[in-house]
Amino acid sequence: MSDAADGLPREEERKMLAGEPYFGGDPYLSLMRRRAKERVAELERLRFDPEGYSAAIRSLLGTVGDDKATIESPVFFDYGKNTHVGKNFYMNGMCVILDCARVDIGDDVLFGPSAQVYCAEHPTDPAARLTGAESARPVKIGNNVWVGGGAIILPGVTIGNGVTVAAGAVVTRDVPDNVVVAGNPARILKHV
Amino acid sequence: MSDAADGLPREEERKMLAGEPYFGGDPYLSLMRRRAKERVAELERLRFDPEGYSAAIRSLLGTVGDDKATIESPVFFDYGKNTHVGKNFYMNGMCVILDCARVDIGDDVLFGPSAQVYCAEHPTDPAARLTGAESARPVKIGNNVWVGGGAIILPGVTIGNGVTVAAGAVVTRDVPDNVVVAGNPARILKHV
Amino acid sequence: MSDAADGLPREEERKMLAGEPYFGGDPYLSLMRRRAKERVAELERLRFDPEGYSAAIRSLLGTVGDDKATIESPVFFDYGKNTHVGKNFYMNGMCVILDCARVDIGDDVLFGPSAQVYCAEHPTDPAARLTGAESARPVKIGNNVWVGGGAIILPGVTIGNGVTVAAGAVVTRDVPDNVVVAGNPARILKHV
Repeated sequence: MSDAADGLPREEERKMLAGEPYFGGDPYLSLMRRRAKERVAELERLRFDPEGYSAAIRSLLGTVGDDKATIESPVFFDYGKNTHVGKNFYMNGMCVILDCARVDIGDDVLFGPSAQVYCAEHPTDPAARLTGAESARPVKIGNNVWVGGGAIILPGVTIGNGVTVAAGAVVTRDVPDNVVVAGNPARILKHV
Repeated sequence: MSDAADGLPREEERKMLAGEPYFGGDPYLSLMRRRAKERVAELERLRFDPEGYSAAIRSLLGTVGDDKATIESPVFFDYGKNTHVGKNFYMNGMCVILDCARVDIGDDVLFGPSAQVYCAEHPTDPAARLTGAESARPVKIGNNVWVGGGAIILPGVTIGNGVTVAAGAVVTRDVPDNVVVAGNPARILKHV
Repeated sequence: MSDAADGLPREEERKMLAGEPYFGGDPYLSLMRRRAKERVAELERLRFDPEGYSAAIRSLLGTVGDDKATIESPVFFDYGKNTHVGKNFYMNGMCVILDCARVDIGDDVLFGPSAQVYCAEHPTDPAARLTGAESARPVKIGNNVWVGGGAIILPGVTIGNGVTVAAGAVVTRDVPDNVVVAGNPARILKHV
């Protein structure tokens, strides 16, 4: 691909990844999101082509732990390249990953359908929101985690190892190792 | 477009927009929903064509406040033309708008991914529901509102200005100005 | 279609339908999920072709009660053929049905948009989950049920007749006849 991004300033991307307020409408960021959509389209086209599919996942994401990674269609990534997954990754259909900050996902992680990870956030102060600046905080998911269908993981959350996030849970704060969390907002349901 | 709708009775649409029980399977309403799907497909096709895209959004929605409106793909509208948005509108991917009644959205409104607005409802009385009649109530969203990802806004709800609807909130009743609401059902979390 | 499935062992499918632990990556099951995607694509292509559409729904699902069944696009089925619907079925857009076990849906059932039925589950015990085995439990929905938008129905749940599942409800246990359930987890809101 000829690199239309050559020469575009990357200052807004730097701010975004540094957790500073940034403008998502920035030309470089807009181009990167567009490329993610093109890569997702390629991934969907190659869904049943074993070799092309694996390469398409590597082209979309920042890091992929092995060739067993599976992402069902449709799927929505903001950037893709800010998402890093370990070995044996499985994501079911209709998931949404707003990886405006880094999303780190460990080994043996399963995403149910329609699960969502949001790094992006807007100010809740209306005056601040009007400036158009948004910000993003990283999300970290440990090893051997099952993110249930329809669950939502909010900006800045770290989820430990061996966790189950129940279907439909809204995870607003960090989750320790080896628990099941459920509800809106998510609370610890049991230790495993 | 040659107007296949010419001659089709619009009585069910009149009832729908008046908040009276109506039949969604009506030929005119079915045709209007089909056209919305065609316009959404056109919008998705033109996502990265600056001029065509803006025209496609105007063709889909009832009113658009300026040329900065953005609707990410995929998106689901029942009619599109019953949705009216102000200036600086942004809707992220996988949103669903059942605009069987009028949906009025103010200026500077942000929709997170998978957010949902439902005007349509069925009777909760099983015998009444069996008749097949549904009804719809308008939804109104003020200025400078952030509807978080995965949030659901129910029929008849009015949301004030300066509001944040937290991710995953289910909004069952009116929301005053300058608050953050969260949870299922949504309750006021703080005043801003 | 020439049957590429000929000769593939169906032991994992037998286990899956029997509620025993099974491996979803099994070649026969993977092929069946691929076929479901192809049938969904065909359904979406024929959405506005009255005759082809009805045949496409019959080709996707296990049983269909009459020719009035409607499934809006996009939709996600794991297998399709394990889902059985009665008369007068209506499913709005963006729904997800993980029919790894049998999904029985009665007459006059309405699904709102983004509603989800999950039969599939993974162990919540991290060590057991690492083996890769999953299991599935059947879901049963009675007659004259309205599953609200964004609602989630979990593995093994039976929903009675005349029920309304409110928008955004997460149904974790059985629901008796003639009630409205709401919330996460869903609780009985009223008797009708």
